[in-house]
Amino acid sequence: AHGARKMEGYGRFLALLASTLLVGFVSVILSFVWVFHYREGLSWDGSLGEFNWHPVLIITGFVFIQGIAIIVYRLPWTWKCSKLLMKFIHAGLNTIAMILAIVSMVAVFDFHNAKNIPNMYSLHSWIGLAAVIFYALQLFLGLAVFLLPFAPVHLRTALMPIHVYSGLTIFATVIATALMGITEKLIFALRNPAYSASPPEATLVNCLGLLLVIFGFLILWMASRPHWKRPPAENAKILRSIGATPEGTEVESTMANTSNADKSNLRSNTEAARKQNIEFDDAGQRSTM
Amino acid sequence: AHGARKMEGYGRFLALLASTLLVGFVSVILSFVWVFHYREGLSWDGSLGEFNWHPVLIITGFVFIQGIAIIVYRLPWTWKCSKLLMKFIHAGLNTIAMILAIVSMVAVFDFHNAKNIPNMYSLHSWIGLAAVIFYALQLFLGLAVFLLPFAPVHLRTALMPIHVYSGLTIFATVIATALMGITEKLIFALRNPAYSASPPEATLVNCLGLLLVIFGFLILWMASRPHWKRPPAENAKILRSIGATPEGTEVESTMANTSNADKSNLRSNTEAARKQNIEFDDAGQRSTM
Repeated sequence: AHGARKMEGYGRFLALLASTLLVGFVSVILSFVWVFHYREGLSWDGSLGEFNWHPVLIITGFVFIQGIAIIVYRLPWTWKCSKLLMKFIHAGLNTIAMILAIVSMVAVFDFHNAKNIPNMYSLHSWIGLAAVIFYALQLFLGLAVFLLPFAPVHLRTALMPIHVYSGLTIFATVIATALMGITEKLIFALRNPAYSASPPEATLVNCLGLLLVIFGFLILWMASRPHWKRPPAENAKILRSIGATPEGTEVESTMANTSNADKSNLRSNTEAARKQNIEFDDAGQRSTM
Repeated sequence: AHGARKMEGYGRFLALLASTLLVGFVSVILSFVWVFHYREGLSWDGSLGEFNWHPVLIITGFVFIQGIAIIVYRLPWTWKCSKLLMKFIHAGLNTIAMILAIVSMVAVFDFHNAKNIPNMYSLHSWIGLAAVIFYALQLFLGLAVFLLPFAPVHLRTALMPIHVYSGLTIFATVIATALMGITEKLIFALRNPAYSASPPEATLVNCLGLLLVIFGFLILWMASRPHWKRPPAENAKILRSIGATPEGTEVESTMANTSNADKSNLRSNTEAARKQNIEFDDAGQRSTM
């Protein structure tokens, strides 16, 4: 029964992860549908086609990829990979998101300048630029403190709660900024029929906005469940020393009840790791969200 | 030195609380400045003056009062008040916020209907209505499970993380919705000069939007620090049995080093309570944000 409960938690995680990926994927698709079916497609010539890179790259990079980067430590089949490898993946995904966000901003500035539209007048632009700056700062500090081997442990311990808090709030702010951007764009772009007449484009893009909010909720839920955390380092070492393959298929297969002695040994260690996390849970549930 | 560290944490909490109250208070003031200095003031006659109740009541009630309701358990001078009293205050503030949010929505619908403007076409309205519905649900479930004495402990334990997560995400969503509302209103209201020409009203209201974001960050930070949590019930009982006055001035004064024996006894118990929270901290910091 105890084993079944672990399974239940694992199944729930997988179901949530699948939902999150689906919602994120549909959001990316809808941004392309918006741009190609209802708008001017994509180009890089100072026209509206250049502007359109902005929503597409923000939703793909700054929302979807950033969201995945946030929960990458939570994927159970990565728990026997080294922490360093996972840090590289976390930092790599965030760097990709950062680059896409910057390109998407260049597209807007370029478009504005070509059309003599003022830059940086809207609340969307103020909060969006602030989010990109804080994201860059977060990435730089994260690299310097947590990835490079120079920072002392007490500094890492002191900065980790701030890193996590900043990461989650910047992510939420990016989604809020995307919602403002969608609002702006629909008001400016829709004339005859206007936004207020609810043409199909308005409904589609409102749904896109709703999906971004749901994507954010799912990422924040998965990122803030203490019992879904990567186990502390000692357990990861045990997992590796048992000889799990780097692909992580063995950890996965142990979730699905095998009788192989080596594997059940690995499973009991995985369960020990989960148990240790669940002990954190009691405090964690009281502590945060 | 140990006592000094506790003091430092208390001082930091007070400084953050003062900043939060200041930012929230300035936001409320700016909403009134916006409405009275730049717009049509307040009225209830289907005119723009009726619409203006919407931003004023949302910022006052659904942002500021909701924010205070979220952190009310964190105020150290309330830790010797009964948990039940604090639950009433938490629920009461949220009920006030709920009523103000509903009145503010009625103002918009009334205004729209008087002017033949369609309702519920914008992403702002979709997410805003969803936020109000989930807030009402959260309030109802919170009353039924945590305030009324009927729910079994295991149900409370199971639902508490969901209650906390929902509360914080609904609060963040309300702020995101306010930012969309500000964006909409500035685009619609500003003509000659337009929003893009950055007239003083645009700058003022963009600043208001920034302040709402900062207010949200501060509330979420204070609500998610495990070492600032209200101590578990046993400690609260100890604090009460020592004979602290209901006004909480004694707990406060112990923070400021008194030599009275009774009070230093109280202080050591307060510190025991804080210590217990800090033990949660180790797990909490790893756990969430």
